[in-house]
Amino acid sequence: MRLCRYELNGQIAVGFYTETSVIPLVAAAQAARVALPGSNSLLPYLTCGESREAVAALQSRIENLDDAGRAELSVPTDSVKLLVPIPAPTKLLLLAGNYTAHIEEGGGRAEERADTFPYVFMKPPLTTLTHPGDPIRVPAVSPDHVDWELELGVIIGRQCKGVSEAEALDYVAGYTVVNDISDRQFKPNPGRKQRDKDGFFDWLHGKWHDTFCPMGPCVLAADEQPDPQTMKLTLRVNGDVKQDSSTSEMVFPVAAIVEFISSYVTLEPGDIISTGTPAGVGKTTGTFLHAGDVVDAEIGGIGVLHNPVE
Amino acid sequence: MRLCRYELNGQIAVGFYTETSVIPLVAAAQAARVALPGSNSLLPYLTCGESREAVAALQSRIENLDDAGRAELSVPTDSVKLLVPIPAPTKLLLLAGNYTAHIEEGGGRAEERADTFPYVFMKPPLTTLTHPGDPIRVPAVSPDHVDWELELGVIIGRQCKGVSEAEALDYVAGYTVVNDISDRQFKPNPGRKQRDKDGFFDWLHGKWHDTFCPMGPCVLAADEQPDPQTMKLTLRVNGDVKQDSSTSEMVFPVAAIVEFISSYVTLEPGDIISTGTPAGVGKTTGTFLHAGDVVDAEIGGIGVLHNPVE
Repeated sequence: MRLCRYELNGQIAVGFYTETSVIPLVAAAQAARVALPGSNSLLPYLTCGESREAVAALQSRIENLDDAGRAELSVPTDSVKLLVPIPAPTKLLLLAGNYTAHIEEGGGRAEERADTFPYVFMKPPLTTLTHPGDPIRVPAVSPDHVDWELELGVIIGRQCKGVSEAEALDYVAGYTVVNDISDRQFKPNPGRKQRDKDGFFDWLHGKWHDTFCPMGPCVLAADEQPDPQTMKLTLRVNGDVKQDSSTSEMVFPVAAIVEFISSYVTLEPGDIISTGTPAGVGKTTGTFLHAGDVVDAEIGGIGVLHNPVE
Repeated sequence: MRLCRYELNGQIAVGFYTETSVIPLVAAAQAARVALPGSNSLLPYLTCGESREAVAALQSRIENLDDAGRAELSVPTDSVKLLVPIPAPTKLLLLAGNYTAHIEEGGGRAEERADTFPYVFMKPPLTTLTHPGDPIRVPAVSPDHVDWELELGVIIGRQCKGVSEAEALDYVAGYTVVNDISDRQFKPNPGRKQRDKDGFFDWLHGKWHDTFCPMGPCVLAADEQPDPQTMKLTLRVNGDVKQDSSTSEMVFPVAAIVEFISSYVTLEPGDIISTGTPAGVGKTTGTFLHAGDVVDAEIGGIGVLHNPVE
């Protein structure tokens, strides 16, 4: 089951998502005479409880409809404005690294994992999160090194602290697509004298430009993806494939990441953890994003997150 | 004018703050027959507009009351539960560094500023912000190097991007006290092989433990502190002075920090920028916080932020 947040005729609503059509939950509930607690947030429909059960019931009714019955409830996907699925997470956490492009060079992922720990950082949520279809804006202060990073986004469904890897996925509500846009050469005060941590803070600040975190187009419910380490990742710029990998290539799998972060930080419902990007970013070939480009970030089972560059 | 958020008899409210008494805005408005738009957030009362004008009118009425009249409206400060003044900032930004303990060793602050840029990082707001009086919790996963950092907290009042230093203070709503609690030796997976960025991420992750950002006890309205670079900073642990400085010692003053951050990130109403800490933190002498300690973080003109350690 995939759910999206969208706007239509000035109203924000939640719907079942497919590439071609959206079925508004409210309309489906009315047609099926299922009592559905109202919400324009996705979370209640993804986590255990009354709303989740109502949505599951709705989903099976819809699956049993014939094409005409489904069409009657549907609106074309391209007639709605898709929105960031989780618009105000209390934390927008991301991983630096986490995929091994050439595991044969080392001892393999298991050894890399044993020898390291996840590098976690944050982006400002309100000002970086960008709706599907909305532009990634090249910052005027640093226009030449804007790069893409396709990542699997994990949405936390229940508060947790100190969870084990074995139980971590029980706290995940769903999965979405994140594009961790990164300015590879943000360098304020370029005539400065070099200090030890300059490189790190340039890297971190370069993640924070406005619009630098597109997210969407929908959320795949976690209970329909019991193994998040089997998802195909493909990113295209102007149609050319730039990243082509699988979540099976993660060094720290989703459950291990949740275990790690929750070992020192309480995770809250709606928190987002973006799990790092595979090989194929622009900086390895010196290819960056410019106005007029279009980026399609796709994860198998979730969908395509499309954003133009401005 | 100092305002606080507090809880009394299960109700959250806003009041005029002094060390000994709190005057609830609602009660003051009733007594003075001033129409006051209701809010349990401080922001409307600190930024331009109807609510700010009503509060200013109220304040002058209260100042004209005699002691008995004021006492009638007041509740003792120690009878209320003081709360974090801005409980859900969309960004909780902090500076690493920003004070020079020994400026005579270099070329002075002006030169240091010309040669550098502000190091900005974030903490997760919901899980680190800690009310006045509530405990800072020593994390079980890393109990031995918990340190204090007294800082001036700046509350943004209006959205801004690309503001100049000259106009930056127009976007500030007020000032508060922040204690940027820091774990100096967080080291996950201690048997790991060393990578270049390990030290940085240990430092960053060590800022994120739950309860590691006490804030309060109140907000000093920005229009009553036209020069934020004249405020005295004093931090005591169990009564012993550990930090003793002034905001005049900042390398980047408040206005320059707002200019810098807003050059690449849109600042939103309620965003917090904590402006770095002066000399005197525990790590320089190997003295750290343990259960049973009490920390009093004071900024002249604002007040004392008191927190026990658990």
